[in-house]
Amino acid sequence: MWQRPGGGGGRTRVITNANIIEKGCVNFSAVHGLLPEKIAAQLNLKAAHDFFATGVSIVMHPHNPMVPIIHMNVRYFEISSGEKWFGGGIDLTPHYVNIEQAKYFHQTLKGVCDQHHKTYYSEFKNWADEYFFIRHRSETRGIGGIFFDKLAETKEITLIERFEFVQHVAETFIPAYTKLMTENKDIPYGKKQKKWQMLRRGRYVEFNLVYDNGTKFGLETDGRAESILLSMPPEANWVYNFQTEEGSEEEHTQNLLKKEIDWINF
Amino acid sequence: MWQRPGGGGGRTRVITNANIIEKGCVNFSAVHGLLPEKIAAQLNLKAAHDFFATGVSIVMHPHNPMVPIIHMNVRYFEISSGEKWFGGGIDLTPHYVNIEQAKYFHQTLKGVCDQHHKTYYSEFKNWADEYFFIRHRSETRGIGGIFFDKLAETKEITLIERFEFVQHVAETFIPAYTKLMTENKDIPYGKKQKKWQMLRRGRYVEFNLVYDNGTKFGLETDGRAESILLSMPPEANWVYNFQTEEGSEEEHTQNLLKKEIDWINF
Repeated sequence: MWQRPGGGGGRTRVITNANIIEKGCVNFSAVHGLLPEKIAAQLNLKAAHDFFATGVSIVMHPHNPMVPIIHMNVRYFEISSGEKWFGGGIDLTPHYVNIEQAKYFHQTLKGVCDQHHKTYYSEFKNWADEYFFIRHRSETRGIGGIFFDKLAETKEITLIERFEFVQHVAETFIPAYTKLMTENKDIPYGKKQKKWQMLRRGRYVEFNLVYDNGTKFGLETDGRAESILLSMPPEANWVYNFQTEEGSEEEHTQNLLKKEIDWINF
Repeated sequence: MWQRPGGGGGRTRVITNANIIEKGCVNFSAVHGLLPEKIAAQLNLKAAHDFFATGVSIVMHPHNPMVPIIHMNVRYFEISSGEKWFGGGIDLTPHYVNIEQAKYFHQTLKGVCDQHHKTYYSEFKNWADEYFFIRHRSETRGIGGIFFDKLAETKEITLIERFEFVQHVAETFIPAYTKLMTENKDIPYGKKQKKWQMLRRGRYVEFNLVYDNGTKFGLETDGRAESILLSMPPEANWVYNFQTEEGSEEEHTQNLLKKEIDWINF
């Protein structure tokens, strides 16, 4: 439980060295106050406005490199100018890509999306591909998922319908990740797999600190650093110019860290 | 040896798992081309300009937590608009602050500065305090040092005099760090010190990826990611809400990660 000096606060829950999860967190926050200048500029707002933002963020870093890292976020934002919108998404970062599980993961997200709008999946899947792209590495963070932002009311879709969709996304997290944990948690691994996991976690750190808007927003609005940076893995490594071995599982995964892969029909 | 697609290139040299240094790098680069839009905006330049930038960067991450991390950078920048300037600095990030060595380090830098201009040390020492500040943690990266940028020609100081100063800074790096390595490399340490080192390295990662202009400039000008990110430690850890023990050496160091400490007269 923490308070934000500028208004509001949140609750942070952490799990460390559990059976499957090495470090995991659930962050809830509901903050408000004067919209920070930098954020106002990004939103093309001239005058000073108040804002209210609330969200839930989850990141899980497993012990076993065969279990993927997962991230889920749902959020709601409103500004005193009258604008209000939802955002969020779920994405998966396997240290080792398992094609069947990637299909399952995207099929599940498509199932959720399709119940709410026929263009949601293709739109939000592409958005995740763009968003979770580590530009300086020319690679995606993982196999993506769905990402969406500024889902406001339209003539066609009410704000309540947006909310129902976002709720449905949140509810999908537990069954989907439980299946992936259960299927992979007992797969044996050795030093090579652990080393690769540490390098992939290094990329995770790079993405979150260099590109992630949620992290930037949090740090720029004087959010609680310890909560915001809970997405950091417990341990990460950097090795200069690491190259995967030809024909290895690591190379297989590296080659799949690309945008625009149609996982469902892979 | 690497080439930059937009023009120029560089040389990267790495040392890993040496006797004292776990991971160290020397990066030389000389790049040119069209000034990227983002950088132009930061410099308040409207039109498209060409730039040329060259520099040497050094970062050393030692095995022994009692040996400090060091960083040195010297750089030269020119734009087709006619502007040209030098920048650079040296700063020290001890995992454990040793007051005598902090005094020695700052005294050495003051000695160099004083030979070139009477205001250099106080000006550039304060600049380092401001620059190497991890805002979201409200702590400095280490004990600072000197940092300077945009040292252009003035009525009082020629560009050649600026260059002589920058050369002098670069030449100070080897004797100063050699002394610190030599004095500390055989100090015994245990798991507790190693754990603390990994947390301090985590902060080093946070600073470099969130705040460091050199890193941002490199990534935004399509520099070579593997070279730019050589400043990353070989391994870093993040522990939620870590608190130092009362009266411990770690607490002593944590309390000294502040701006405006007068190390020379400590």
